[in-house]
Amino acid sequence: MCVLTRPILEINLDKLVENYKYLKEIKSFGAVSAAVIKDDAYSLGADKVAQSLYEKADCRDFFVAHALEAEKVRPVVGDSKIYVLQGVGEDSLEVFQRLNLIPVINSWEQYLFWKAHKFGELKPVLHVETGLNRLGCRLCDVEKLSEAERGSFSFVMSHLACADAVGHFMNEKQLKAFQEIKAKYFPQTPASLSASDGVFLGKDYTFDMVRLGAAVYGINTAPWHEKTLQNVITIKAPVLAVSTLKEGDYVGYGATYKAVAERKLAVVSIGYGDGMFRSLSNVGKVFFNKVPADIIGRISMDNVICDVTSVPEVNVGDLATIVGDFYTVDEMGADAQTIGYEILSRFGKNTRFIRKYIES
Amino acid sequence: MCVLTRPILEINLDKLVENYKYLKEIKSFGAVSAAVIKDDAYSLGADKVAQSLYEKADCRDFFVAHALEAEKVRPVVGDSKIYVLQGVGEDSLEVFQRLNLIPVINSWEQYLFWKAHKFGELKPVLHVETGLNRLGCRLCDVEKLSEAERGSFSFVMSHLACADAVGHFMNEKQLKAFQEIKAKYFPQTPASLSASDGVFLGKDYTFDMVRLGAAVYGINTAPWHEKTLQNVITIKAPVLAVSTLKEGDYVGYGATYKAVAERKLAVVSIGYGDGMFRSLSNVGKVFFNKVPADIIGRISMDNVICDVTSVPEVNVGDLATIVGDFYTVDEMGADAQTIGYEILSRFGKNTRFIRKYIES
Repeated sequence: MCVLTRPILEINLDKLVENYKYLKEIKSFGAVSAAVIKDDAYSLGADKVAQSLYEKADCRDFFVAHALEAEKVRPVVGDSKIYVLQGVGEDSLEVFQRLNLIPVINSWEQYLFWKAHKFGELKPVLHVETGLNRLGCRLCDVEKLSEAERGSFSFVMSHLACADAVGHFMNEKQLKAFQEIKAKYFPQTPASLSASDGVFLGKDYTFDMVRLGAAVYGINTAPWHEKTLQNVITIKAPVLAVSTLKEGDYVGYGATYKAVAERKLAVVSIGYGDGMFRSLSNVGKVFFNKVPADIIGRISMDNVICDVTSVPEVNVGDLATIVGDFYTVDEMGADAQTIGYEILSRFGKNTRFIRKYIES
Repeated sequence: MCVLTRPILEINLDKLVENYKYLKEIKSFGAVSAAVIKDDAYSLGADKVAQSLYEKADCRDFFVAHALEAEKVRPVVGDSKIYVLQGVGEDSLEVFQRLNLIPVINSWEQYLFWKAHKFGELKPVLHVETGLNRLGCRLCDVEKLSEAERGSFSFVMSHLACADAVGHFMNEKQLKAFQEIKAKYFPQTPASLSASDGVFLGKDYTFDMVRLGAAVYGINTAPWHEKTLQNVITIKAPVLAVSTLKEGDYVGYGATYKAVAERKLAVVSIGYGDGMFRSLSNVGKVFFNKVPADIIGRISMDNVICDVTSVPEVNVGDLATIVGDFYTVDEMGADAQTIGYEILSRFGKNTRFIRKYIES
């Protein structure tokens, strides 16, 4: 018997690099394959991820959301291009200059700010709105630009709203809008429309650069397509205690679970403080050698309790699998009433994990 | 106009200390008032919080969940006692010895491990189960202990399941079970039953030590009681873009929001990558000078989009309030179908915030 207390997060960088190469070689149709490593590479460690993609897959174009996210990336990617999706502002200008970052211009105000503060020969990216109605300059802004100004961008980009659903009317609508803006205002400027869901929609959607994010991390960005991407993370957590629940006993805060018969339960050392969604209370499951054990009662900050009555031989110190190849962040997302993106982005931010990188 | 990109997290340590003092002076009935600073003090920074409580409120007893959480606490709390709720194991023994931490023994296996590896004159805490059915030794384990062994603990503790609901049958049931175990097996050992919800249940529940956590951070742990605790955090995020939505336009991923009339919208620089629960999509709100603006469409990793049609004068660079005195983590928790504890524990883990501590 081994008494343990800490959860474990394993990140397989080899599989991550394979996902990137698959998307680059099979799905990008020759477009530049930029890697999206924002939000600390979906919390998996932007430095580790960027370095692997740079060294093992010749990636030379990276996207972060905020300038400060590039602090730990710049040292490991040589003079690669690093684009900043949220754009530039007074609270980030110094970082842009110091790390030589390329802003994405998302609004007229950001454009004016850039004009007033631009540095070097750097050509920013212009983000134009085509239907998502999130970031991106509107047509009325584009029309304010002179021809010389329109020529001052290295790329024109937009972003799809429904690219995970093949045949969705929004895809064609946005594609058309983007093609029209490009033809009319930016005929000579390279273009980028798709992230890692859009690349599954085919060659029309890839243009000159694709921005590969979620799918690189194993998220199934094209649920309609045969799954071709590999799971990248495994989360395990040790059993702290095993006990017997008598008929009529309650479990957890609020006493939301009541045993209708004798049950065997295990307390596992992971909770919402580690990123385990509390919405999995009384709904989710953990696994022992691929045998599922239902989560019973409310998930607390440091622990989940599960019913191991039908699981053969569970002992203190055994590791429960929380996320793995057979129960991915997408599947957990469905159980937690969210998406794999949010599941993934949350787990890796927690410092109580023993974090291991697998790399050949 | 000021163009900004990063969200801001303000933590008011003065109010936090006042909350602790209120709980200690008014609600603890002379019991030792330990501070629970697990999960990095609910993500607010265990070092900062512990130092404030140590220096400004004479707190000398701290609880963490995992031993490694004490790494940054030990240097700022002198020789205060630091208890570790998840207990001790092979993956943490070294940290216990080096930082002189006190384990809570939660199972028979943890007790055997402690017996085999104990160090110094240190007396652990025995956690006994009284109805939560999470951690804690069962009666059958307690009965295996000799009288001398039972005398080797500095405290005997348990934990309440429903202490946030006055009059809940579980409270009296657990109190009785705890009193019986104490009287029969630990008549001379100091005792601890309540966390910061239990202290509102009165003197019977406070025993010799209370463990003050959530309420110190402003969470309303006694919703039935007049609110006496102060909000401790403020979260703001800048507007990146303002635009007009035409009738029939869609917003966000999946095009889940469709405008039935012209709307004005603002894109705010905070998303689930910053800890904003995606379950607030099309449900939650943000505020401009206390005027609410509905979140429309799905929340994405870096942004939320809100309807500012009825908000006077919103411009790029303006700060939207995400959490504040008038919209607390408890209220956001209700909107997000969870609790303030999970909201709080998640936000502070995100490094994209400009983090400010307010302290006199």
